[in-house]
Amino acid sequence: MAAASNFFSIVAGVGPGTGRSVALKFAKVYPVVLLARNPAHYESIVKEIKESGGQAIGFSTDVASQSSVKDAFAQIQKELKGKKLAAAIFNVGGAFVRKPFLELSLDEYEAGYNTNGKGFYNFAQATLPLLLESVESSPHPPSLIITGATASMRGSATMSSFASGKFALRATGQSLAREFGPKGVHVAHVVVDGVIDMPKTKDWPINGGAPDGKISSAAIADSYWYLHTQPRSHFTHEMDCRPYVEKF
Amino acid sequence: MAAASNFFSIVAGVGPGTGRSVALKFAKVYPVVLLARNPAHYESIVKEIKESGGQAIGFSTDVASQSSVKDAFAQIQKELKGKKLAAAIFNVGGAFVRKPFLELSLDEYEAGYNTNGKGFYNFAQATLPLLLESVESSPHPPSLIITGATASMRGSATMSSFASGKFALRATGQSLAREFGPKGVHVAHVVVDGVIDMPKTKDWPINGGAPDGKISSAAIADSYWYLHTQPRSHFTHEMDCRPYVEKF
Amino acid sequence: MAAASNFFSIVAGVGPGTGRSVALKFAKVYPVVLLARNPAHYESIVKEIKESGGQAIGFSTDVASQSSVKDAFAQIQKELKGKKLAAAIFNVGGAFVRKPFLELSLDEYEAGYNTNGKGFYNFAQATLPLLLESVESSPHPPSLIITGATASMRGSATMSSFASGKFALRATGQSLAREFGPKGVHVAHVVVDGVIDMPKTKDWPINGGAPDGKISSAAIADSYWYLHTQPRSHFTHEMDCRPYVEKF
Amino acid sequence: MAAASNFFSIVAGVGPGTGRSVALKFAKVYPVVLLARNPAHYESIVKEIKESGGQAIGFSTDVASQSSVKDAFAQIQKELKGKKLAAAIFNVGGAFVRKPFLELSLDEYEAGYNTNGKGFYNFAQATLPLLLESVESSPHPPSLIITGATASMRGSATMSSFASGKFALRATGQSLAREFGPKGVHVAHVVVDGVIDMPKTKDWPINGGAPDGKISSAAIADSYWYLHTQPRSHFTHEMDCRPYVEKF
Repeated sequence: MAAASNFFSIVAGVGPGTGRSVALKFAKVYPVVLLARNPAHYESIVKEIKESGGQAIGFSTDVASQSSVKDAFAQIQKELKGKKLAAAIFNVGGAFVRKPFLELSLDEYEAGYNTNGKGFYNFAQATLPLLLESVESSPHPPSLIITGATASMRGSATMSSFASGKFALRATGQSLAREFGPKGVHVAHVVVDGVIDMPKTKDWPINGGAPDGKISSAAIADSYWYLHTQPRSHFTHEMDCRPYVEKF
Repeated sequence: MAAASNFFSIVAGVGPGTGRSVALKFAKVYPVVLLARNPAHYESIVKEIKESGGQAIGFSTDVASQSSVKDAFAQIQKELKGKKLAAAIFNVGGAFVRKPFLELSLDEYEAGYNTNGKGFYNFAQATLPLLLESVESSPHPPSLIITGATASMRGSATMSSFASGKFALRATGQSLAREFGPKGVHVAHVVVDGVIDMPKTKDWPINGGAPDGKISSAAIADSYWYLHTQPRSHFTHEMDCRPYVEKF
Repeated sequence: MAAASNFFSIVAGVGPGTGRSVALKFAKVYPVVLLARNPAHYESIVKEIKESGGQAIGFSTDVASQSSVKDAFAQIQKELKGKKLAAAIFNVGGAFVRKPFLELSLDEYEAGYNTNGKGFYNFAQATLPLLLESVESSPHPPSLIITGATASMRGSATMSSFASGKFALRATGQSLAREFGPKGVHVAHVVVDGVIDMPKTKDWPINGGAPDGKISSAAIADSYWYLHTQPRSHFTHEMDCRPYVEKF
Repeated sequence: MAAASNFFSIVAGVGPGTGRSVALKFAKVYPVVLLARNPAHYESIVKEIKESGGQAIGFSTDVASQSSVKDAFAQIQKELKGKKLAAAIFNVGGAFVRKPFLELSLDEYEAGYNTNGKGFYNFAQATLPLLLESVESSPHPPSLIITGATASMRGSATMSSFASGKFALRATGQSLAREFGPKGVHVAHVVVDGVIDMPKTKDWPINGGAPDGKISSAAIADSYWYLHTQPRSHFTHEMDCRPYVEKF
């Protein structure tokens, strides 16, 4: 087992909610690479991590684009030369279209899959070879952690775009867990069932405005870190999380 | 309720297995439209139906292509002028690629979604407006019936392409059931868990070669017809089927 | 394959809803044995079947009592000497207690299991040997069909008694399907998700009073018959049913 | 929030595997009460905890017996006077009978439910009132954590006793999560999918004898502790765990 400083982590899909919290959490141990389409989504987080003594670097990347992901990983290999990948987090939300089905365009329908199906394929193709290289030496089993949603488990009226993307993501995650688990890579899927507490949702009247009625993204980050530290005799493939007042 | 002869049915994804059997079954009551990319897949079935006194017509259609589906339905509207749609069956298998994930190209990965995600979107967009028009008059609640697979329920190593497509299909089917059920359209998803008994699988050593160890496609067709005839107070959304000797 | 007249069927848990409809349906082909604790629950149904030309006989039986079930089957063997069992339907609802957990007595909690766990054990022990004897000769694969509920799939606040019984029933049904399916006995579990339309529920304001907003028990009976007639290459283990307007 | 020393924890079902590890883990923060039918199962663990500076006390208790559980809790209230309950762990395995169904006696069938259905009812009735009293003051949300198994999710041939008990346990756990979650008590269910690494399983040839092919009970204890420390905005109801080489 090598020192954590020889390793890095990567978070795809950073923004003001889960992505930021996960990046801050993993940055306490590993340098963190942040991917988002819009640099505005990672720049302040990179700054925040650096100011608290961590290492972070962001790359503008569209996970739905194979060439964009390839370009990003070419740069990553150069910038983090000599470091190995310990943890890869796929936290891409993607467009969240709610519409009656017959008003949904093909582009809108495909948006769910483009980010969470194809986007995850691109991310997994880029990170799995690096995670496999870390199996022998990583402080904890190298991990590929996936953010799911209620819509990963059930479709609902007007949500076919988001649900089909999240179902495809879960299917791919299960397939990878079964293929790469025995090789020592931990693939885990977290079903986030509820609304994240973040600036944009501040005034949403969720769960009757109950205190702690929205999910703390810092607590999600704790979950991801906990999953990353599980030993290989005890891999969790799936866990849910929701506020105590959430109906389920 | 109008006479069945004022209605038609449509089967997307016909070939020598389930598609053929479903077409023969529904042709006993309704004229049947058959869709397949390759005319060779429907021509003999059209002939077989006509010879036994039914009505059938085939259209070469690529369900993964929005324009191909639109063209087909323009022709269908013309050819079946005055008839209403009673049942639409989505039986598109799609490419079945089995490969270690890191050897799977993006095109191969997307093949599952193209047929079963986007392809089903295209088919549902074309058929749901017609099914809605039949709610008041159809002999049985107008039905959209979907062929799923074991891979609709769980991913497995080397099957991420097929599983992600079948998961996306199930997600979309669930969404449509919840949106269109209350409008009177019956959306049902059948999990076919096992190998279909057809010429191509004749010599596959399934279930130790046990008699009836492969699924009779005629029995699947009976299921689909049974689902179509359920009254609206009793809609089945999901059922499985497998040979008695199949492990599950 | 022998004539249907050499076979009989049996329904445990008859009353004015599903049990009556299933008995009437199966009585069109097989003599039917009806089991209920209270003779008042089967007497009018026996009469109804006989008046329409069928054969039926009822036995007062408490499925939760091993000796009561043994006594009933001893009588059945005598009364139906020479006939074989083609279909056994377990439709025992059991006490339906809704209470905050801390107000629920142990007796109330156990009521769910007594009928649907232990009761099903007793019924399955009595019927499976008879069903196995019919494998070679029954007109359709001998069948053990189980009535489940929404509470078979998920617990809910105040419903732990009913849910624990229905979960135990489903667990046992799955175990039996896997053990006896390969021997030719069809074990099927139907998730009835909604309220049955029957005299007692007539004025219940279900689904906003929508027409057909409650499940037709005759349609459930059609399902059970359909399941019974499936060939062994195509056994359905589980299907759901609900009104088109039911939220799920 | 009060000091952890004002609180205690309780583990039902202690033995050389998970129970011992969970007790050792929670004893680092809280005094631990251990329940087992056979004092031999907790005596050495009590000693081990005391020797490492923790507090522990054991009570011989049969969870399947309402009076035995009541007696135990009367003693607990006396011995731990003034302390509040922070965490209750239900880790009762129960008899694990594997037999063809037709060779399974009623007593053997009921053994699964007696421990995991009725036993859990008794344990939950005793602990939930105490957990509710701790909601305002406990260092972490008071927790009721349940050990499930693969058999909580699916029945299998010859396992109807164990599966029906574990299904009933899960049903009850789900019901309690939905009733007591909104009151601030965290009810969590862990699906342990694999064989625990402990003296008794040392020579079992699990997963081809792969290193770490059995689950570390210390890692399960870490999971339980992690679940206990989740804030109320982020309650996990269910998670699985299995060795990296386990087929699933």
